Amino acid sequence: MSTPIIKPQTLRGFRDFLPAMMIPRLQIIEAAREVYSQYGFSPIDTPALEYTEILLGKGGNETDKQLYRFEDQGGRDVAMRFDLTIPFARFAAQNIGVLGTPFKRYHIAPVWRGERPARGRFREFVQCDFDTIGTDSLAADIETILVVHDLLDKIGIGEFTIRINHRQLLNGLLEQLGLLEHSKELLRALDKLPKIGEEAVIKEMVDTTGVESGKAEQVLKLAALQGEPEAILEEARSLISSSELGQQAWSALQEITQTCSNIGIATNRLSLDLSIARGLDYYTGLIFETFLTDLPDMGSISSGGRYDDLAGLYTKQKLSGVGGSLGLDRLLAALDEMKRLDEVATTSQILVLRFVENRLADYQKISRQLHQAGIASEVYPEAKALSKQLKYADRKKIPLALISGEDELAENVWQLKNLRTGNQLTVSADHLAETVKAELNTL
Amino acid sequence: MSTPIIKPQTLRGFRDFLPAMMIPRLQIIEAAREVYSQYGFSPIDTPALEYTEILLGKGGNETDKQLYRFEDQGGRDVAMRFDLTIPFARFAAQNIGVLGTPFKRYHIAPVWRGERPARGRFREFVQCDFDTIGTDSLAADIETILVVHDLLDKIGIGEFTIRINHRQLLNGLLEQLGLLEHSKELLRALDKLPKIGEEAVIKEMVDTTGVESGKAEQVLKLAALQGEPEAILEEARSLISSSELGQQAWSALQEITQTCSNIGIATNRLSLDLSIARGLDYYTGLIFETFLTDLPDMGSISSGGRYDDLAGLYTKQKLSGVGGSLGLDRLLAALDEMKRLDEVATTSQILVLRFVENRLADYQKISRQLHQAGIASEVYPEAKALSKQLKYADRKKIPLALISGEDELAENVWQLKNLRTGNQLTVSADHLAETVKAELNTL
Repeated sequence: MSTPIIKPQTLRGFRDFLPAMMIPRLQIIEAAREVYSQYGFSPIDTPALEYTEILLGKGGNETDKQLYRFEDQGGRDVAMRFDLTIPFARFAAQNIGVLGTPFKRYHIAPVWRGERPARGRFREFVQCDFDTIGTDSLAADIETILVVHDLLDKIGIGEFTIRINHRQLLNGLLEQLGLLEHSKELLRALDKLPKIGEEAVIKEMVDTTGVESGKAEQVLKLAALQGEPEAILEEARSLISSSELGQQAWSALQEITQTCSNIGIATNRLSLDLSIARGLDYYTGLIFETFLTDLPDMGSISSGGRYDDLAGLYTKQKLSGVGGSLGLDRLLAALDEMKRLDEVATTSQILVLRFVENRLADYQKISRQLHQAGIASEVYPEAKALSKQLKYADRKKIPLALISGEDELAENVWQLKNLRTGNQLTVSADHLAETVKAELNTL
Repeated sequence: MSTPIIKPQTLRGFRDFLPAMMIPRLQIIEAAREVYSQYGFSPIDTPALEYTEILLGKGGNETDKQLYRFEDQGGRDVAMRFDLTIPFARFAAQNIGVLGTPFKRYHIAPVWRGERPARGRFREFVQCDFDTIGTDSLAADIETILVVHDLLDKIGIGEFTIRINHRQLLNGLLEQLGLLEHSKELLRALDKLPKIGEEAVIKEMVDTTGVESGKAEQVLKLAALQGEPEAILEEARSLISSSELGQQAWSALQEITQTCSNIGIATNRLSLDLSIARGLDYYTGLIFETFLTDLPDMGSISSGGRYDDLAGLYTKQKLSGVGGSLGLDRLLAALDEMKRLDEVATTSQILVLRFVENRLADYQKISRQLHQAGIASEVYPEAKALSKQLKYADRKKIPLALISGEDELAENVWQLKNLRTGNQLTVSADHLAETVKAELNTL
């Protein structure tokens, strides 16, 4: 009697990563690790599960309903993390005494949200965060932008623009207009600009705060400014000139953009966009979003900013900082849409065909010789017909094959076949690694 | 009124990874990725959460109580994976039509078990599995051993021995003795050998199966064989000579060990140990465990074997295969015990001191120039006293520092200081990267 079969299926809202998608995903993660490390950000990890109390903090917001929350074997109220920021805040409050400041960390790990699944939205996704805490220096803000810049440059996803703003610039205008007390309502209305349009935003501003429509228009005018930093700063100057708050923000933006320009960041890659208002409560200084020139509708692929107080829920020690995050899944989707993901289903660069059954040791030896030269090589496990072995290489898109029969094995000579061009070379074992490398370079 | 502070703490049984532990952990993971990839194993990923039905399968074993199981927002019975084998079985049943066979995958990811926490045992740990499915060829078994060998060699954890056995060798003896029907009870008794000793095992064998004590002694004699493969195979030969099952297993072990020897695996690194009986139900052919010569009590740091049927619960397609797993946490503990984990809390190799406040762009420029040469370099964010900046380098164990004041900046000349030796050099920007690399090589 056979056991009934359980239908093999992934949980709703979740997905498997097959090699063809996992390989580019790991390449991006690897690029992030490399750039973060190069700038001195150290890796950390925190548990997938935390006390619910830690994750919810004040609680009562949208995230609660999305939380995977349950009771563990010990009756504890626990939940799976829904971002890496809150675990980092808990981590910092707990460990900063040992770690010292400034502390620069990166954390690349999955998070879980029981959101309604939609096209391209999954309930499990990987976040790639980096932050510098324990310094107020604008040098850290500038470095954050350099990291994002160098990372996207490295991934090679075409042109992009990092759009920056400062949370206090608009507040400066509001101060100048005597509207600072209404900042929350005004920002909330402003945030709807892309959706409902100027007129409706002005109406909402007037309705909720009683502000004169002329002043509401000025708020919109500032938020509408975007483009090349020097020009935009010039235009914004008079709008905030009598507010100290605004002037400080203005100077910060000037120092950030000027320094980036001096460092050699191309002008088309960094712009000011005074409409950006992300993280209304959390961010307090620099804020940024990043858009692909070829796929502006994809949304921001990297964003972040400066905050005053990371871990106020868990410690009285004020930990200010600045950081950013890479949108890994969005980036993968962008690469897919740009047809830059190829169908490669393996990292193997060469397949050693098993031609003579009882000479496995020779085939494995030559393969390991290639490994030592840094070449990924695998031996086909069975001495099947060559056509069958080559079909395997074709399905996995392995570009090269290595063939040697009895006579050639006796002389340690190999047939190197380029499976893309059909080109075939006879090479002695001594020169094999260099010849394989040269052939790989032609692909 | 200030919000009350929530005590920052990790969940019981879980832990944070600070940089000093996370850096070596990532290095081992990186080594595993590299070796797996070099042998043509492709990366995959599966969700942390699965339908409970998928994970429990037949259900009713020890694992059930350890399962983090709950109802999701849609009322589904779900659980966090407790290993990577069952998700791989589900994955294979679901995707093998697209992937084709043979299929070689690796999967490095966390798993969760609500076990009673103990010293060195945590409820979240990372598994590093690799498998070849869809071929019965011994070439895949041999490759599995080569992968483990090359990986441990690469990690550099001192000498080690991969101890192998074959599940059917003992069955062959049992067949020869006419005891095959009692194999389950006899194996169970045998498995207690290290704990209860020979006499008690023989007594249990006699008591549970009614076997003659002379035959029980023969079973123990076979299981006691361990050492250099050729000698052990010679000794085992007569014990299984009249059993076809035993002869097949014997031949398989001979081919595996002989081929590994021909490939050049050192004799002290591969031995036969006929007492190994891991995975009584699951494994059907080769089985292996790996021990460190300097830390034998640490237990096996890499194990695995061959199985007949990976995904029988989810598909009628018979998927046989062979694979192994690296014990990441045990390996880290071993490195720690061998004092091979250093205190490095960053990957930075050089700290650029911010000496002149308004020359941040110059400091960042030189740092990025080093990045381009593959050197991890960071700029201290604040123009504080040099002693304070150097203290930061010391705490993070950054070995080099770069200093340049007004005059030197004007000439683009840098003071390179080796913080370990105190050695100091004056270098022009043009020669900086090579000089830094040379200095790093002396460390």
